[in-house]
Amino acid sequence: MSKKIVAGHGSGGKLMNDMIEKVIRARFGRDILQLDDAAVLPTGGADIAFTTDTFTITPIFFPGGDIGTLAVNGTVNDLAVMGSRPLYISCALILEEGLELGDLERILDSMKSEADRAGVKIVTGDTKVVPAGKADRIFINTSGIGVFDAKVSRGDIVPGDKIIVNGTIGDHGMAIMALRNNLSFSRGLQSDCAHLNHMIGAVTGRFPESVKFMRDPTRGGVASVLNEIVQGKPFSARLFEDALPVRDEVKGVCSILGIDALYAANEGKALFIVRAEDAEPIVRILKETPEGKEAAIIGDINKEFPGRAYVETTIGGRRILPLLTEEQLPRIC
Amino acid sequence: MSKKIVAGHGSGGKLMNDMIEKVIRARFGRDILQLDDAAVLPTGGADIAFTTDTFTITPIFFPGGDIGTLAVNGTVNDLAVMGSRPLYISCALILEEGLELGDLERILDSMKSEADRAGVKIVTGDTKVVPAGKADRIFINTSGIGVFDAKVSRGDIVPGDKIIVNGTIGDHGMAIMALRNNLSFSRGLQSDCAHLNHMIGAVTGRFPESVKFMRDPTRGGVASVLNEIVQGKPFSARLFEDALPVRDEVKGVCSILGIDALYAANEGKALFIVRAEDAEPIVRILKETPEGKEAAIIGDINKEFPGRAYVETTIGGRRILPLLTEEQLPRIC
Repeated sequence: MSKKIVAGHGSGGKLMNDMIEKVIRARFGRDILQLDDAAVLPTGGADIAFTTDTFTITPIFFPGGDIGTLAVNGTVNDLAVMGSRPLYISCALILEEGLELGDLERILDSMKSEADRAGVKIVTGDTKVVPAGKADRIFINTSGIGVFDAKVSRGDIVPGDKIIVNGTIGDHGMAIMALRNNLSFSRGLQSDCAHLNHMIGAVTGRFPESVKFMRDPTRGGVASVLNEIVQGKPFSARLFEDALPVRDEVKGVCSILGIDALYAANEGKALFIVRAEDAEPIVRILKETPEGKEAAIIGDINKEFPGRAYVETTIGGRRILPLLTEEQLPRIC
Repeated sequence: MSKKIVAGHGSGGKLMNDMIEKVIRARFGRDILQLDDAAVLPTGGADIAFTTDTFTITPIFFPGGDIGTLAVNGTVNDLAVMGSRPLYISCALILEEGLELGDLERILDSMKSEADRAGVKIVTGDTKVVPAGKADRIFINTSGIGVFDAKVSRGDIVPGDKIIVNGTIGDHGMAIMALRNNLSFSRGLQSDCAHLNHMIGAVTGRFPESVKFMRDPTRGGVASVLNEIVQGKPFSARLFEDALPVRDEVKGVCSILGIDALYAANEGKALFIVRAEDAEPIVRILKETPEGKEAAIIGDINKEFPGRAYVETTIGGRRILPLLTEEQLPRIC
């Protein structure tokens, strides 16, 4: 392991997982510091979920949102995919000297508006200012608390379970990369940044025992989440290439930049692993929500290539989706 | 108000308060976004306290601790001064490319060790890496959750109440400033960085109805906290100069750098406003704890100069302690 921090340590891939495992969890505890998106915590009363996320995205404004919308929705979604109902979030700012006050206000307006729509309250905060050249305009940490007030049980993942996503893949990552690379043809492409708690509540409310796993595929994308699920397990995750919802604009940017949409960040998507028999009805419920109109079954849990995630191509080939080692899309969130 | 972010926006003084009021609370809500150190949150079961703090201190290692000890103790103390019992904290890292892995490990070791001693668990985390020149080695956000499992009532502050501090003032701020300014004569001077939850629990356990207010005087120091308490109120906060516990080394550094110890940051101190009749017994209890050996009554709530904090000097003069406008000691925490 490299003795200095490199970009790949923030990749959501192997280098980052190694560091979390060897450097962080080795100290803070493997049982306690959970690899899920949030910690589930007993408090004496109802159990709560607790999560934290720092946002360092560049640029801070982009089609479909800004660092503020991202900061609220990212944390709301981390709580929602744990099966909890998000209630409260914090807002801790690192501001670089020289940041335009108008930019800060615009970002805070986004946060407030997203929080209202998601139904969460911003209840505590902190502000630090650092000299020019010691940050990049603004970094935001949001931590969040959710409650488990509905019973959602989470049975074991078994071969045959279906993999569902609530819409198109890679929109956020490719919108940011197009913007950074001034790809003008990508007009219309925008981040999918959205809060998913209401959509997820609609699914778990109707099918409290069908969903075995949920996760928002942000940094590292769908491929990284699937790798995490199957690693060391006696089963694999198979995606059907022709079932993957990918916008044409995303395909275009991916092909120019040589990026696989399955590794591109999403900020308004959740992956669901569900019982096979409930997959179709769950997709129908998803399609009734604004965030799930393009929901689809995109694959299943399989026995072929245990421990691996892979794509079955339209012509019947197999393409393994390796765990990323290096940072592919730095500062995407 | 300036249209660009300047260092003073992080000062803990007037410029920062203005920004929090006009830019942040104006959006997120004056009732909801509390000015206390943590939000008190109903969850259906026991009420919880929720707080967040980002640490951007430079240098990251200093006599008496490092950015990791600071990050754990700062958040533990914010929860403790609210009267809650700290249970869980998060750890969100922003790492600058090129940071020595050994430095990161040393900081994480500090966090683990402090968390263990404080009796809190680090339960969730996040890691972001930014390019060299876009951060300053490492920034840490810790958010925390505490529970209100003991009844502590908080009566109104009235003239006659006593002001107590658990030990010497300004140690953290002056240790950092001495280090930054290479003041070699300051050997022996070190940060007071410590977790105060056990000490505070000893006081509130024995005197559940005597403590009217607690706060850890970090950025902006004792003077800033007292200003916050009395602002707009029909009473003042009076400190007795000869009662203020200040180390000789701190006095020395303060005098060379032209800094008032009352505005210097503390990281192991709490101010208590208590019922007059219980002040002496509370000091006795504080003195029985490791963090309170030098506890003292340092002043009282008074009627002279309503809305102001001031020092009564040894020769009987009065020195008003204004609310800071500018950043005096940048990046002290």
